[in-house]
Amino acid sequence: MNNFEFYSPTEFVFGRDTESKVGKLTAEAGAKKVMIVYGGGSVVKSGLLARVEKSLKEAGIEFVELGGVKPNPVDTKVYEGIELARKENVDFMLPVGGGSVIDTAKSIAVGVCYDGDFWDFYEGKAEIKAALKVGVVLTIPAAGSEGSGNAVITNKDLKKFGIRAPKLLRPVFAIMNPELTMTLPAWQTASGVVDMMVHIFERYFTNTKNVSISDRLCEGILLSIIEEAPKVMANPNDYDARANIMWAGTVAHNGTCGVGREEEWTSHQMEHEISALYDVTHGAGLAVVFPAWATYMAKHHPAYVYQMATRIFGVPEGDDKTAVALQGVERLKKFWKSIGMPLTFKELGVENPDIDLLVKNLHRNKGEEFGFYVKVNPAISREIYEYCI
Amino acid sequence: MNNFEFYSPTEFVFGRDTESKVGKLTAEAGAKKVMIVYGGGSVVKSGLLARVEKSLKEAGIEFVELGGVKPNPVDTKVYEGIELARKENVDFMLPVGGGSVIDTAKSIAVGVCYDGDFWDFYEGKAEIKAALKVGVVLTIPAAGSEGSGNAVITNKDLKKFGIRAPKLLRPVFAIMNPELTMTLPAWQTASGVVDMMVHIFERYFTNTKNVSISDRLCEGILLSIIEEAPKVMANPNDYDARANIMWAGTVAHNGTCGVGREEEWTSHQMEHEISALYDVTHGAGLAVVFPAWATYMAKHHPAYVYQMATRIFGVPEGDDKTAVALQGVERLKKFWKSIGMPLTFKELGVENPDIDLLVKNLHRNKGEEFGFYVKVNPAISREIYEYCI
Repeated sequence: MNNFEFYSPTEFVFGRDTESKVGKLTAEAGAKKVMIVYGGGSVVKSGLLARVEKSLKEAGIEFVELGGVKPNPVDTKVYEGIELARKENVDFMLPVGGGSVIDTAKSIAVGVCYDGDFWDFYEGKAEIKAALKVGVVLTIPAAGSEGSGNAVITNKDLKKFGIRAPKLLRPVFAIMNPELTMTLPAWQTASGVVDMMVHIFERYFTNTKNVSISDRLCEGILLSIIEEAPKVMANPNDYDARANIMWAGTVAHNGTCGVGREEEWTSHQMEHEISALYDVTHGAGLAVVFPAWATYMAKHHPAYVYQMATRIFGVPEGDDKTAVALQGVERLKKFWKSIGMPLTFKELGVENPDIDLLVKNLHRNKGEEFGFYVKVNPAISREIYEYCI
Repeated sequence: MNNFEFYSPTEFVFGRDTESKVGKLTAEAGAKKVMIVYGGGSVVKSGLLARVEKSLKEAGIEFVELGGVKPNPVDTKVYEGIELARKENVDFMLPVGGGSVIDTAKSIAVGVCYDGDFWDFYEGKAEIKAALKVGVVLTIPAAGSEGSGNAVITNKDLKKFGIRAPKLLRPVFAIMNPELTMTLPAWQTASGVVDMMVHIFERYFTNTKNVSISDRLCEGILLSIIEEAPKVMANPNDYDARANIMWAGTVAHNGTCGVGREEEWTSHQMEHEISALYDVTHGAGLAVVFPAWATYMAKHHPAYVYQMATRIFGVPEGDDKTAVALQGVERLKKFWKSIGMPLTFKELGVENPDIDLLVKNLHRNKGEEFGFYVKVNPAISREIYEYCI
């Protein structure tokens, strides 16, 4: 097991009606003037935004609003937010939404405290040294950004990059009411399920030896998601199933299941190129890419694909590791198909994928070779993208 | 699933040589003068205490020392510590040891900030409103106090009581070097394994419905402990096995696996009476009491005993829930026996247990009826204690 630090200081306030505590929690965090960040009209239409505002007013906290964040959030909205935050003397960011909204808010939080261009952090040209505090009201269980110290933004050059600053970017609180997720469209619910599962797989697939505790934590969370996701798809108002999925999405990405091991993230990077180019839903893109990646791994380095197959999908043990591993991949695909997810570029809505460009952008952004479980070069990434056809 | 709050702000610094960071971490926590708390001579003999002092000195931090904390820690040492802390203007507690040392330090931390008798908190007569910060160098994986907001102390009336203050008593950091646990005697290693397993069981056994995510987290941690404990017993210097066990002890008790569900804790309370009266090792006491408790539950409310049997110990499913559940209890006992733990009062070194007195003290301290999974009254607790003979 590798040395590690685990630091997850977020106060998670989980359950029915918890959004009514947002004013109190924001005040306790020392906020005076808040920027509420949100996406489309759903938080307006549902009345959630009005409830959040009411709670802030009751706690005597001023606020401004920044709406219109889109999925696969872009740098232009971040620049707009930084300008607004400076003009209005905002001292606390309050995203109300899912990963795109939270990541936009986190990027504004670091951008406000930096004299240069916030994109410097995404290019690795500057180190994050300060950030406004962030508190979250979560409405989409998927990205896990409510408990993570990360954010992902896409710029005009189709660079979909991430930042990481665990000590500064982990939200001080995250309000999580499963009821708020009941109105999510089936597509978005299922995409969220895939996203959180792949967050676990990216940690699970490792070459670090003897990491039983994190193996078993990964497997436990995956088994729960596999139990609960079909219930949520069958009955979107199943509170308990929504609750299990919502918390699974958090522990999938706040570090709980990745301690002491080298992590992967190649599938995420390969998907980022797809969603940057074709603006597809990230989770749906992962449903296409991850099984393709796992298929390659089953053939070349089956160890953890085999373990996934036998421990998570109940494939019987066997001497032919690759064959068992590939059966596991098939079961995973069947499961994702059963919740309405695409498994090919075509099903994802990308009729003529430009694999040349995907491979080119991928290695432009990540280097000629990258990855941990198996290093991926242009020939390998091409083969994996081709499995997606 | 129940509403819940999950707040685990401790910075866990895990791995080889991490104790060398104690000065830096203590300084970052704002400490000026520290009280190092420790137990017997092992931290002196091993040189750990000298290394901790060196690191503090290098960081420019003053310190005083309080040694001599015993297992099943008592109030008299806490009073001694409070007096010393006030005299020396200590502003930070630094326990170097296991649960007894940490809980003594936590009790001093709250006692120093309170005008009355610190025992008021243990009797529920006063509410904890302030505490010195606590940072931990852990040497015994067992109690989980390095990540919890709890402490347990015994007073002169043989009351072994606990306090809980998650926002004030969770350590600001916990340094965890598995190498430091390699010299633990086999008995203490195995007792720690039992303690952490029962911390999970106390959360696992619930009547809250539809809590798949925490069920699976509990099961995952238990499966890992069952895999790794025999390796540690066979080879005390197996770093990776020590590391897996050490982290398992933390996530068993920092709240990770208990979210959203009513918890139990009857076995702990029944054991506290045994260790208060006979001064036995807490984990060894639990190895005797918990299977007795689970045997009663298998007969009267087998649901979670059955689930434990089938999911953790691989007992085949069956229509006779009680029979399957009892097989699970037998496999648990066999496992604990295999790592050298006692299963009866006699094996625990208590030749003539005074069951009348144990039952009397238990219900004096906890009320005529208590418990959640099944309420325990004096007739039931007597039956359970009798199973321990």
